[in-house]
Amino acid sequence: MTVTQQYEEELTKRARALHRDAIVIDALDVSLMNREHLEHMLEGGVTAANVTVTIEHGFHKTVDLVHDFQRVFAENADIIRPVRSVADIRAAKAEGRVGIIHGTQNATPIEGDIRLVKPLHLLGIRIIQLAYMTGNLLGDGCLEPRNAGLTVFGRRVVHELNRRGILIDLSHCGERTTLEAIEESEQPVAFTHACARSRCTHPRNKSDEAMKALAARGGVMGITSLAAFVADDWRDANLTTYLDQVEYAVQLMGIDHVGLGMDFVEFLPASFLVPARWGGVHVPTGLSGLTEFPIPYSRDVDDSRKLPNVTAGLLERGYSEADVRKVLGDNFLRLLERVWSISDSADAE
Amino acid sequence: MTVTQQYEEELTKRARALHRDAIVIDALDVSLMNREHLEHMLEGGVTAANVTVTIEHGFHKTVDLVHDFQRVFAENADIIRPVRSVADIRAAKAEGRVGIIHGTQNATPIEGDIRLVKPLHLLGIRIIQLAYMTGNLLGDGCLEPRNAGLTVFGRRVVHELNRRGILIDLSHCGERTTLEAIEESEQPVAFTHACARSRCTHPRNKSDEAMKALAARGGVMGITSLAAFVADDWRDANLTTYLDQVEYAVQLMGIDHVGLGMDFVEFLPASFLVPARWGGVHVPTGLSGLTEFPIPYSRDVDDSRKLPNVTAGLLERGYSEADVRKVLGDNFLRLLERVWSISDSADAE
Repeated sequence: MTVTQQYEEELTKRARALHRDAIVIDALDVSLMNREHLEHMLEGGVTAANVTVTIEHGFHKTVDLVHDFQRVFAENADIIRPVRSVADIRAAKAEGRVGIIHGTQNATPIEGDIRLVKPLHLLGIRIIQLAYMTGNLLGDGCLEPRNAGLTVFGRRVVHELNRRGILIDLSHCGERTTLEAIEESEQPVAFTHACARSRCTHPRNKSDEAMKALAARGGVMGITSLAAFVADDWRDANLTTYLDQVEYAVQLMGIDHVGLGMDFVEFLPASFLVPARWGGVHVPTGLSGLTEFPIPYSRDVDDSRKLPNVTAGLLERGYSEADVRKVLGDNFLRLLERVWSISDSADAE
Repeated sequence: MTVTQQYEEELTKRARALHRDAIVIDALDVSLMNREHLEHMLEGGVTAANVTVTIEHGFHKTVDLVHDFQRVFAENADIIRPVRSVADIRAAKAEGRVGIIHGTQNATPIEGDIRLVKPLHLLGIRIIQLAYMTGNLLGDGCLEPRNAGLTVFGRRVVHELNRRGILIDLSHCGERTTLEAIEESEQPVAFTHACARSRCTHPRNKSDEAMKALAARGGVMGITSLAAFVADDWRDANLTTYLDQVEYAVQLMGIDHVGLGMDFVEFLPASFLVPARWGGVHVPTGLSGLTEFPIPYSRDVDDSRKLPNVTAGLLERGYSEADVRKVLGDNFLRLLERVWSISDSADAE
């Protein structure tokens, strides 16, 4: 065995041990939650994931979807558990199960009625993205050329989400809505899944200004491995360029404000991107490779099972074990603990 | 009898005859459509009115409301009739009945799905306002401080409404949404009920720029008698100041682009303005007198029965009978004829 081989073996051993021991939070997983994918999450060491309930539905259908998920919990109780609190995430870790956080990628379940935030919280929704690709009743998604900020209703909803203990996600929001929501929110917020626009020019990615503002208010950004967001030419996206995105965010925002948000779509049907989902209006994503399945991910970070590669990669780049833990999950855990802990009084109303 | 008395008697006689003979279109009536109000419309010589189906509901509830209106048609068939075409308006005139046009004051029935425009048209909806007071999926209402323009979805819906033969109403839209929709639409559009902001400073009123742009594209503006929109101090609103608004619009836009749109709310319950209707968010109207019922209207133009006063007033100001007819209804009739006539091929799809 050469010195290099020895080094790599040691590194791998250390990475495996660290990854196994760490709290790993995938801040966005939109995959079909079948047994196979759940096993992949478990194999990849995911302690908890923000699993998308809906990107488009109103309140009633969202109730259906949350209800339907009870069957997934029941049938896979040996490997997953619901997460409604940080204690649930710690319990998932202790039990060796994957914690499932209910999140939405759009504010459509709130419809036009702020009073629906309460039942959504009571149903277990813990993360809500203010807008997806297009404009909605709160603000604008990143593919809306007008780039409007928050509506009056949107500002009120931000405070209601704060008060109910639901984490606000701005990953897909347009620049003005992103900046205004960071400013409006009394609680730190998240980009659960995005990359830095400075390193990959795409409207779905976040500007330096937005990343710095997020961090200044205590928020956390999960770095996605979706190839088109990692590198200008998506074919260049691999573990190295993914880690470059992580490092860029760490340098800009600080080690306490970066996490993982893979945005995997494993086993999703191709119809996921069909224009009919956009209300009969075709909204171009502006991406090569993103209008067709399968969506390409960064090589060697293209599946939940590959998450240990991130741990090994960060160690190899000289990150301390404590810092690696922050990126893997401790930062999101701290954020969730802060945001989720203030809901009790509001629910009693 | 003095010369003045003789003149006034002649004028009144002439006005009555003209009003009785003319096509009178009230481009906005949101009143409760009970027997008493329908009789008031008939007494006021209304040939047809744009009667509000909803200002807030989604598709399903709108279907309910249109369906429920069948009972109103059935119970009052002696004095009202449905209007789906300009031929129906002419028939209403010939029959001495009031024609009821189904219109909405918000695009909420389209929800987020452009495909719902077709069934709305098939149900008989012939006028749709793009946004009410707040921002929606298409654009912004006039009380939305961000003053955003049309979304991508909003632009597509504009073309779909054009193609289906539904008149686009921009009365309540904010400035940018108003200007962009006039520009985007292939068909002339309407402000069914508003006044000139130059004569009464209020966000619900229309700028000179918007009024000129509307006219340049062939649109028509119905002048409302709602006191807070007619005069800066709503207590000054009367037949004179109302006619001043009409005349200002005629001077700015030309005689072919001005009509009536009274915005009466007769018999509406006070709950019409309750904050709960705004999704639990209180949206201040910014009006003295508009957050409480009854809403004050311009003196002597405060009820459908007073419409002949407008005819007499315009004659008194020296308008020709042909010009008075244009304002009373011929302009809106021309606009509806143009916009509604293009729907046949689209419905066959």
